[in-house]
Amino acid sequence: MSNKPSTKPLSGFMELLPEEQKLFNELLETIKNTYELCGFIPMDQPLLDRKEVLLAKAGGETEKQIYELTKGDTELALRFDLTVPLARYVANNYGSLTFPFRRYAIGKVYRGERAQAGRFREFYQCDVDIIGNETLSIGYDAEMPIMIARVFDNLNAKFKTGPYKIRINNRKLLSGLFEALSIEDKATELLALFDKKEKISSDEFTESLQNIGLDNSAFELIQQFLDSDIDGLPSLSIENEQFQEGISETLFVLNAAQASGSPIESFVYDPTIVRGLDYYTGVVFETQLVDYPQFGSVCSGGRYDNLAGQYTNRALPGVGMSIGLSRLFDQLVKNNALQIQTQKTNSQVLIVPIEENNAAALTIQKQLLDMSIACEINWSDTKLDKRIGYGDKMGIPYLMVIGNNEVESGEYVLKNMQSGESTQGSVEDIVTTISKV
Amino acid sequence: MSNKPSTKPLSGFMELLPEEQKLFNELLETIKNTYELCGFIPMDQPLLDRKEVLLAKAGGETEKQIYELTKGDTELALRFDLTVPLARYVANNYGSLTFPFRRYAIGKVYRGERAQAGRFREFYQCDVDIIGNETLSIGYDAEMPIMIARVFDNLNAKFKTGPYKIRINNRKLLSGLFEALSIEDKATELLALFDKKEKISSDEFTESLQNIGLDNSAFELIQQFLDSDIDGLPSLSIENEQFQEGISETLFVLNAAQASGSPIESFVYDPTIVRGLDYYTGVVFETQLVDYPQFGSVCSGGRYDNLAGQYTNRALPGVGMSIGLSRLFDQLVKNNALQIQTQKTNSQVLIVPIEENNAAALTIQKQLLDMSIACEINWSDTKLDKRIGYGDKMGIPYLMVIGNNEVESGEYVLKNMQSGESTQGSVEDIVTTISKV
Repeated sequence: MSNKPSTKPLSGFMELLPEEQKLFNELLETIKNTYELCGFIPMDQPLLDRKEVLLAKAGGETEKQIYELTKGDTELALRFDLTVPLARYVANNYGSLTFPFRRYAIGKVYRGERAQAGRFREFYQCDVDIIGNETLSIGYDAEMPIMIARVFDNLNAKFKTGPYKIRINNRKLLSGLFEALSIEDKATELLALFDKKEKISSDEFTESLQNIGLDNSAFELIQQFLDSDIDGLPSLSIENEQFQEGISETLFVLNAAQASGSPIESFVYDPTIVRGLDYYTGVVFETQLVDYPQFGSVCSGGRYDNLAGQYTNRALPGVGMSIGLSRLFDQLVKNNALQIQTQKTNSQVLIVPIEENNAAALTIQKQLLDMSIACEINWSDTKLDKRIGYGDKMGIPYLMVIGNNEVESGEYVLKNMQSGESTQGSVEDIVTTISKV
Repeated sequence: MSNKPSTKPLSGFMELLPEEQKLFNELLETIKNTYELCGFIPMDQPLLDRKEVLLAKAGGETEKQIYELTKGDTELALRFDLTVPLARYVANNYGSLTFPFRRYAIGKVYRGERAQAGRFREFYQCDVDIIGNETLSIGYDAEMPIMIARVFDNLNAKFKTGPYKIRINNRKLLSGLFEALSIEDKATELLALFDKKEKISSDEFTESLQNIGLDNSAFELIQQFLDSDIDGLPSLSIENEQFQEGISETLFVLNAAQASGSPIESFVYDPTIVRGLDYYTGVVFETQLVDYPQFGSVCSGGRYDNLAGQYTNRALPGVGMSIGLSRLFDQLVKNNALQIQTQKTNSQVLIVPIEENNAAALTIQKQLLDMSIACEINWSDTKLDKRIGYGDKMGIPYLMVIGNNEVESGEYVLKNMQSGESTQGSVEDIVTTISKV
């Protein structure tokens, strides 16, 4: 054996077998079609950008994880999300865009994280954002959970991913509360603690909350706030403009979800949803698959005040959401939540010419393709069994062997490979039979 | 103005406005759907790979153009085509694949060429390859021009890209001829000269051919060969096995094209088609748009003996083709061959709630979406004129303003924004009206 390089893909880079790829693409198409149906336009930006552009706002972790390179004397990097390139794009094309600017983007992003199970270094994000010019109505925030519901309803209809729960909060409730209590200096600590409330015990949470060093009344009010449902919030009598805005925005979003006819049990107010410390400013949300809580949030996002402050002085508020598709797909597959299909190709018919009836095979192929019936010819010079076996292995549902008998009589045989049943007739009859299924 | 980074994309990296992106995606979809119809399965591989893998076979120009980077202590590079990753994939997954392995891949590749008009450093390739296990029938070669015809017929039907010409040759004709004349040592020079025959004058060509230093009979036979059509080749009486194989393979391909019902005037035998010096070994082809000869070849490919020799000792012959979509799109746009559409979004209906009829607007939106009618709500808090103007600018064909009158009566008004015509009725009536178009 000569000295050949490894043929494995890089660690953390997903590379699928045909039957997996087909399934992955079907998930991706379902998401994409839902985004387009909801009036979002596609964007497809470069994967490479100037390093100074990508890192204009980022810090710490992001900077460490970035894939950087130099070409000529330009410092470049691979994008680590789809939002930073969007910000640059909107700043660059401000005069040519119509606002609110509604775009989706489905593409690969790169983060050089430590390799571990279920973490990818190259992965798909499926993002939707709506960007306003100076202002953006709360109605657009309300659209997001409604569309998430539609996406996961569609995924469930096709792939049985099951019920989901969209947990909704508003950062104005949190900052209003801290402002009312004059504890803004403890905001970072408190948000981090809220964020992990679900993962720790109730006693641990209370102890950590005590350790933050609040006075008694603040401690109590925070506990009441966390225990309250959305309708109970007004009775906490927190006299703070932001907090009151938070209540009315949250009610708007929940009422809109109900009016939209989405399954209302899937939407829930949750005061512990935080989503990152310094990016979001209003509505925030996370989505869980009820049958797979261990996946964590499979779709999240929220409202931000200023998309592109690092590139332009214009105020561009936005609201957005993101699905980490590579990770979601990987988790669903590992939990047997998606059935890998036996059909590895779109081909509906395998055409096998024998006795040199190549021209007839090509004519039939053309007729099927013209009727949008996907098909292919097996040309191999091997035994008939093996040629038919190819169709079996690929899971192609129908077989047509084209020999002298068929060509002379004009009567072709279509064999259903699953039932073993055969139908005989003209090419037109055969097209009809396949189209009926 | 503070010191902000440039918001322009990198030079040589295509970034489109919404109306351009929509058109680009429609071209891409047309190609993709044709590939899938013809029984090719999708593959989506990492854009990054080990440098030693990508450069296992490449040399010279490729190595200079490659984008390379180091992460940890691994030397990485961005893929410069889709064929090298395919070779690695087939070698890696050999035991899991069914042969012939028919895959398409549509994705971005990277070449750090000198920036010049119409040359991209990040660009889409749309590739199809069929890989055999040890052998691959000539039938698969014949499929390629037939499918190219289908792709460009479909592009023409949708975008009026016009007629095309697929020029077909076979490297066995060329190497057989050189072998018969015992001038294999001059093959490289001759192939390079054939390759540029079209671009130079007839006198220049003859002079260059003379300068190569052939004896008189060889010089004459080469001229006869180049002047002959496919049916005249046998009368050249070249007693060489490769040459004779070249004739029969070329005839097979041309006859198959005719049998497939493809427009036969689009296929032409051309002895000057060479396609690269050391990769292809049999059938080779190029495609030109008849109305735009200045584009050069817009789709080319051919047969190669050994896909993955750098990774495996198995013989994996293949045949493939590639469309450089970014360049093709750019050229078509610059030559006004594609009409940029007025509709920038998929949305068919803009819903504008007034007098706080948000719930009604959301209900109608749901009803339309459930019927697969793409639509969106304009929530903006501005004047009605401006909200309607948004729909105009985006080219959304229908408008529904939802006010108290509509909600109380259950009679909604659908306005056709192009004709100015309005229809009135229930939501069901409105769905019917839109679906009829």
